[in-house]
Amino acid sequence: MISLVETTYLLSNEEYIRVGKSALIQVGVSTEHSDIVIQSLLDSDQKGIHTHGLFRLPTYIKQISRGNINPQPIIQLIEKGSNIKLLDGDSGLGSVNSFYAMKEAIKLSSEKGIGIVGVRNSNHFGTAAYYAELASSQNKIGIVMTNASPAIAPTGGKKPVLGNNPWSISVPTHIGHPITLDMANSVARGKIRIKALNGEPIPVGWALNSKGEPTTDANEALEGLILPVGDHKGYGITLMVDILTGVLTGAYFGNQNPGIEEDGKRNNGHLFISLNPEAFMSIEEFKNRLNELINMIKSVPKINENTEIYLPGELEWKTKLSLKNDKIKLPERIFDRILSFCHEQQIQLPDYVSV
Amino acid sequence: MISLVETTYLLSNEEYIRVGKSALIQVGVSTEHSDIVIQSLLDSDQKGIHTHGLFRLPTYIKQISRGNINPQPIIQLIEKGSNIKLLDGDSGLGSVNSFYAMKEAIKLSSEKGIGIVGVRNSNHFGTAAYYAELASSQNKIGIVMTNASPAIAPTGGKKPVLGNNPWSISVPTHIGHPITLDMANSVARGKIRIKALNGEPIPVGWALNSKGEPTTDANEALEGLILPVGDHKGYGITLMVDILTGVLTGAYFGNQNPGIEEDGKRNNGHLFISLNPEAFMSIEEFKNRLNELINMIKSVPKINENTEIYLPGELEWKTKLSLKNDKIKLPERIFDRILSFCHEQQIQLPDYVSV
Repeated sequence: MISLVETTYLLSNEEYIRVGKSALIQVGVSTEHSDIVIQSLLDSDQKGIHTHGLFRLPTYIKQISRGNINPQPIIQLIEKGSNIKLLDGDSGLGSVNSFYAMKEAIKLSSEKGIGIVGVRNSNHFGTAAYYAELASSQNKIGIVMTNASPAIAPTGGKKPVLGNNPWSISVPTHIGHPITLDMANSVARGKIRIKALNGEPIPVGWALNSKGEPTTDANEALEGLILPVGDHKGYGITLMVDILTGVLTGAYFGNQNPGIEEDGKRNNGHLFISLNPEAFMSIEEFKNRLNELINMIKSVPKINENTEIYLPGELEWKTKLSLKNDKIKLPERIFDRILSFCHEQQIQLPDYVSV
Repeated sequence: MISLVETTYLLSNEEYIRVGKSALIQVGVSTEHSDIVIQSLLDSDQKGIHTHGLFRLPTYIKQISRGNINPQPIIQLIEKGSNIKLLDGDSGLGSVNSFYAMKEAIKLSSEKGIGIVGVRNSNHFGTAAYYAELASSQNKIGIVMTNASPAIAPTGGKKPVLGNNPWSISVPTHIGHPITLDMANSVARGKIRIKALNGEPIPVGWALNSKGEPTTDANEALEGLILPVGDHKGYGITLMVDILTGVLTGAYFGNQNPGIEEDGKRNNGHLFISLNPEAFMSIEEFKNRLNELINMIKSVPKINENTEIYLPGELEWKTKLSLKNDKIKLPERIFDRILSFCHEQQIQLPDYVSV
């Protein structure tokens, strides 16, 4: 159960990084790799996506301790064509594999217009947006996808066999931050949880109960099966992502990966694409044209005058850009988990301020 | 208003092609180009997607007659990188541009693992699936997208500024037909129309009424605004497709193209990607792995024992493969439109059988 009103804690980026890196180095991860992981988690917490921030670290550490994630992988980058490569992650941390894979795709696209790097033998990589934005920060269009543990049933079925397989596209702009779509292919479980807490019904089409029947009861939904976005459309998207990331790269696919809460070694597959707009026109012209499109969107009459029309990823960037003095805001339930984690791992507790 | 019970007419492929080609040749389209267009329409009618079959031809002919579509374009294929090209369609028929663009992408991917061809100065191209399947029929993974006339408002807005921008991914398999996802990014208007005819409500989240308020009344929805799939998710997808097809290629984007029912010259943008699985593994191994995934999906316990779990595109392929003796089935309302069109264009009426 999550609380809806929480105290917020302020932590400096420096302290955040110290805590995170200490924990990873303690279980045998190199300084370089630890830094890559923590930077990706920091980005999520800065954007207010706390479900994918430092909150994830205890799970990574546990997976390393159990031998499911290899803290000292020998990463291989295998040439598969003039601008295609395959990275074998040797069961290492997902963020590390993904960072190197996207860097390589960006380099290929700088030289040849497009770069594609598939990844196999990997693990949970955090948010897809982080890697797509590595590309857009270099004036490329970044496309990222991954498969994941079974969570979605095919339309007409009542047992999950496909992941919700998140994917992201990020595009460079003139407006101070990229436009970034980052989505999984089912309705967010968090949204259903909030409806349950508020005692509200959920719309038809969001979930099935444990008997496989459509339900509008949020509590029944949480015990049942969450449906893909747009039903057969979301099922189709998630299947295609599994084919492009799992089947194509040599990773696990379908229900081969252990369940979300299950122990066991994973072999996640990812795909990283970097496309250089300069293959088609100058980056200036591309961004100017995109600005015209942004203006069209921003000037659409609003349904409610008090709300704003956002671009994908804009809200997350506004949150990140509003942070002051290199300090990060963490809600209580996230911060509590970090404190108890530090206790467990015998890591010096961070300095913090509650606000 | 569409009728739900209709007589079906049987027409030979030969007669279908004769009627379609006659009409196009009559307005100045070359035999070669006419053939390309009609083959793409035939494929849709064979798959039972009659909204994208011969039904579309009168609109194409009208657009040519009005000078909005150029029947004799000078198509240019411009090199943009070692495996990237841009096709300028010179305002020609969308299917013609798309056929040549995908053929080129397939050729590039045979040689270099991946091929990308952007298209500008184009028009309505029929179904995205048709071109994605040109790739999968050659053992490549085909990815196709297009922008379209304004139909979707950004989340929070009440005026359409983005198209529903269809896209498709098609993958070669061992099962006698490809797996093909083909989707637009809004709830299908046809589904709402059927609810209206049956006097049934629609789920929350499908549409807004003409005041921009959420509605469950199907008739109000048809006069209002149809919402993107998964709300902000569908909005994000449709925006990204417009960026990749419209902004990036030099075509129109956002609300620059005339409305669906409006007259006027269009400049649609498309993007065609062909990815060769053999860059990663032999095509046999790829298809064997995909077969494992298909088996996992097909063996999921069903919600209702009387329904089947389908792969994306499977139902359409079953319809196509069930046709006998090179004959095509057309529902009455489609066939009537073709007959009256033949009258108007003074084309010899086709031989047919009603069943």
